Amino acid sequence: MTELTHVDDSGAARMVDVTAKDVTVRRAVAAGTVRTTPEVIGLLRREALPKGDALGVARIAGIMGAKRTPDLIPLCHPIALHGVTVELTLRDDAVDIEASVRTADRTGVEMEALTAVATAGLAVIDMVKAVDPAASIEAVRVLLKEGGKTGRWERNER
Amino acid sequence: MTELTHVDDSGAARMVDVTAKDVTVRRAVAAGTVRTTPEVIGLLRREALPKGDALGVARIAGIMGAKRTPDLIPLCHPIALHGVTVELTLRDDAVDIEASVRTADRTGVEMEALTAVATAGLAVIDMVKAVDPAASIEAVRVLLKEGGKTGRWERNER
Amino acid sequence: MTELTHVDDSGAARMVDVTAKDVTVRRAVAAGTVRTTPEVIGLLRREALPKGDALGVARIAGIMGAKRTPDLIPLCHPIALHGVTVELTLRDDAVDIEASVRTADRTGVEMEALTAVATAGLAVIDMVKAVDPAASIEAVRVLLKEGGKTGRWERNER
Amino acid sequence: MTELTHVDDSGAARMVDVTAKDVTVRRAVAAGTVRTTPEVIGLLRREALPKGDALGVARIAGIMGAKRTPDLIPLCHPIALHGVTVELTLRDDAVDIEASVRTADRTGVEMEALTAVATAGLAVIDMVKAVDPAASIEAVRVLLKEGGKTGRWERNER
Amino acid sequence: MTELTHVDDSGAARMVDVTAKDVTVRRAVAAGTVRTTPEVIGLLRREALPKGDALGVARIAGIMGAKRTPDLIPLCHPIALHGVTVELTLRDDAVDIEASVRTADRTGVEMEALTAVATAGLAVIDMVKAVDPAASIEAVRVLLKEGGKTGRWERNER
Amino acid sequence: MTELTHVDDSGAARMVDVTAKDVTVRRAVAAGTVRTTPEVIGLLRREALPKGDALGVARIAGIMGAKRTPDLIPLCHPIALHGVTVELTLRDDAVDIEASVRTADRTGVEMEALTAVATAGLAVIDMVKAVDPAASIEAVRVLLKEGGKTGRWERNER
Repeated sequence: MTELTHVDDSGAARMVDVTAKDVTVRRAVAAGTVRTTPEVIGLLRREALPKGDALGVARIAGIMGAKRTPDLIPLCHPIALHGVTVELTLRDDAVDIEASVRTADRTGVEMEALTAVATAGLAVIDMVKAVDPAASIEAVRVLLKEGGKTGRWERNER
Repeated sequence: MTELTHVDDSGAARMVDVTAKDVTVRRAVAAGTVRTTPEVIGLLRREALPKGDALGVARIAGIMGAKRTPDLIPLCHPIALHGVTVELTLRDDAVDIEASVRTADRTGVEMEALTAVATAGLAVIDMVKAVDPAASIEAVRVLLKEGGKTGRWERNER
Repeated sequence: MTELTHVDDSGAARMVDVTAKDVTVRRAVAAGTVRTTPEVIGLLRREALPKGDALGVARIAGIMGAKRTPDLIPLCHPIALHGVTVELTLRDDAVDIEASVRTADRTGVEMEALTAVATAGLAVIDMVKAVDPAASIEAVRVLLKEGGKTGRWERNER
Repeated sequence: MTELTHVDDSGAARMVDVTAKDVTVRRAVAAGTVRTTPEVIGLLRREALPKGDALGVARIAGIMGAKRTPDLIPLCHPIALHGVTVELTLRDDAVDIEASVRTADRTGVEMEALTAVATAGLAVIDMVKAVDPAASIEAVRVLLKEGGKTGRWERNER
Repeated sequence: MTELTHVDDSGAARMVDVTAKDVTVRRAVAAGTVRTTPEVIGLLRREALPKGDALGVARIAGIMGAKRTPDLIPLCHPIALHGVTVELTLRDDAVDIEASVRTADRTGVEMEALTAVATAGLAVIDMVKAVDPAASIEAVRVLLKEGGKTGRWERNER
Repeated sequence: MTELTHVDDSGAARMVDVTAKDVTVRRAVAAGTVRTTPEVIGLLRREALPKGDALGVARIAGIMGAKRTPDLIPLCHPIALHGVTVELTLRDDAVDIEASVRTADRTGVEMEALTAVATAGLAVIDMVKAVDPAASIEAVRVLLKEGGKTGRWERNER
């Protein structure tokens, strides 16, 4: 029967033993969106001009956030990260965030990709909250993962 | 004219000087939702039985996440946190998360409350991702903040 | 002659070079005890009822503490952790803690297992200190280690 | 009736709100012992000669550990630390550790003093474990605390 | 007689007790230089064009580094930081870095300003090291500090 | 044409993907100097007597700083460190620092060696700043690196 792997039969939390898993190249892509106002997007576009750090702050927060995943998520394994990219795209009233993480290790990197997206989203909110206190983070989700025993999984989005 | 406070006139990122702001009691409440499947909610309900840590892991991740906010969000001030609660509510196909943070310091604690919600949400995803790889975090947003010069702000939600 | 490996001939601290050591599966088990009062044990039993996080907080603190070992212990190598469990057992006037850590890396994981026990013990103390300020942590020790060149070592306890 | 303050009525973990508590000078002293062999004590004495870092590593680990307390203990408040000392005393077959921590803040610093002792103890173990794998940490306990509403508490030890 | 304040009479390291010091507004400005080649400066100028993060990475690393000071410098007090700016100026064959840190707390913030400069400098080196492995960090120093009992100190530079 | 590898074609920061690089033994040696006064050097010599931690604090700060490199330098890969040494040499009016770092991983360890030197240098400054507020860190640079595809590189210093 299906069970949550992160708790044992008695319900106690554990870091699942992955010693026996193969070291393989793994990749995960996650995405999310910060919903805000057209006014804020206008400010972000303006600040993205030289030498505007507005989006850079969020991009770097996302990359550094990916590295902090095992510190933040209690049962996550500390693993090597071999490559991280975070892309931010300005839309009319939203900032789309996409993070891609690669490793050659024993577990997948979905949590690292999701943490990169969430952290970048929080950094965007931090920057715009004085202008738009109602800004929100939406749809933080895995788009794709590949590598490892379970193989490729791709989100079904139309 | 309205401007992003976290970048200077040239667009360079900075941690805004708050030395002159008053130390006042401040509170922020934020919320969010992990959208998943009824099957996962059933597993979480079962694991929440004694001695089930499933929701406890997320609650604790949220509280600890609030404390890590200045490490994660590049331009956030390190501030004292005087009280943090994180509540998780199981619904039919979702886990609602609400975090409340209090301090007596020079800046508000919205970012800490939002980071608590996002971190708790990521911890929930980590626990359920083997069963529901499509689980997502939705609507991470501030519900309420009070204290400080700008005073009380409450989200308009029906 | 026997020498402390973590200091060189002049007595200067160093992180010992393990580049030449083999990557092998290694395991360590450590244990310890929080000594407190029957009254506190009664409270912990009660709080361990749904949705009681009392012991869960300590278990999670232990698992996360294991991951922070190289940040805490100056000369410890940062290594991969492939599995961590922390068990807490309530006795009449004490909480027994046992941690088991596994890896496939170049050094043993005794320090990670001991740090998990100590951190879980500190988290228990934190929870009970208002009721029992005299609670103490006792007998934090390695029970077993295996893997690596020195092979299996088991504590001689009757 | 007596209750654990770190969990609410339903048993959920929380960081207790201390906003209303006074900022007062507070101090805590904690102690503990690493039990080992006379051979190891001999090595430590020798390495404590110039420029021997053996005990210095543990002292510094203890001071830095005190600063990491809120990162390690899930429900601990992040607080200002205004002074930390860690003393190590070599005995025939043991290393006594005593830590003293001072602050002017809203909560006591027992956990910081205990964490300093535990971390210093772990650092000693790390240094001697190749020679004495059976070394253990004993009697990590608060000796004294003062300041705050509950006032002075001193351990009753003969 | 003049003595090092961070060690006691026996030479043991300690975090000096500052409980009795006044909370006053304090500021420190530090500076340093990354010496590299005109070719690298050309690349940095080009990457500083939209949406170039090259200098932004260093600026943000400096701001975040300031916040990590008490984690990095063993005997530094954890203190509130109320404002941090990091400026990078491209010269012909060098990048000048200047950091300014403000607080209202019990100790000065020279170490935070110096750590910001050093971290920003390391981040610059990281970015250019593939092109110029000989790049170096020079003259990391305090330019100015003010506030606190010792008052204003300004570096004598011609 | 030569380009900065840490930003993509549009100038966005990224953690470069090293999944395809070979795991090889790599070493880096870096150095730097804290310039201060003969009076301070006299104090350091005196405090380096038993049980003087003065130089030990800097040595340990350097070793621990090397482990924190990926937390500090935004685009650095988290990698295994297999050995770290930090040497401090007292000269007439300066403290020379040399750090050597070894690993068997996919990227070089220059940044870890440089971070060790910079952190040790900051720790020295912290200890002497009350006596010599003008102390500075000079010439933080790579002396040697070997291993990996680019092979051995040695600084040309006379």
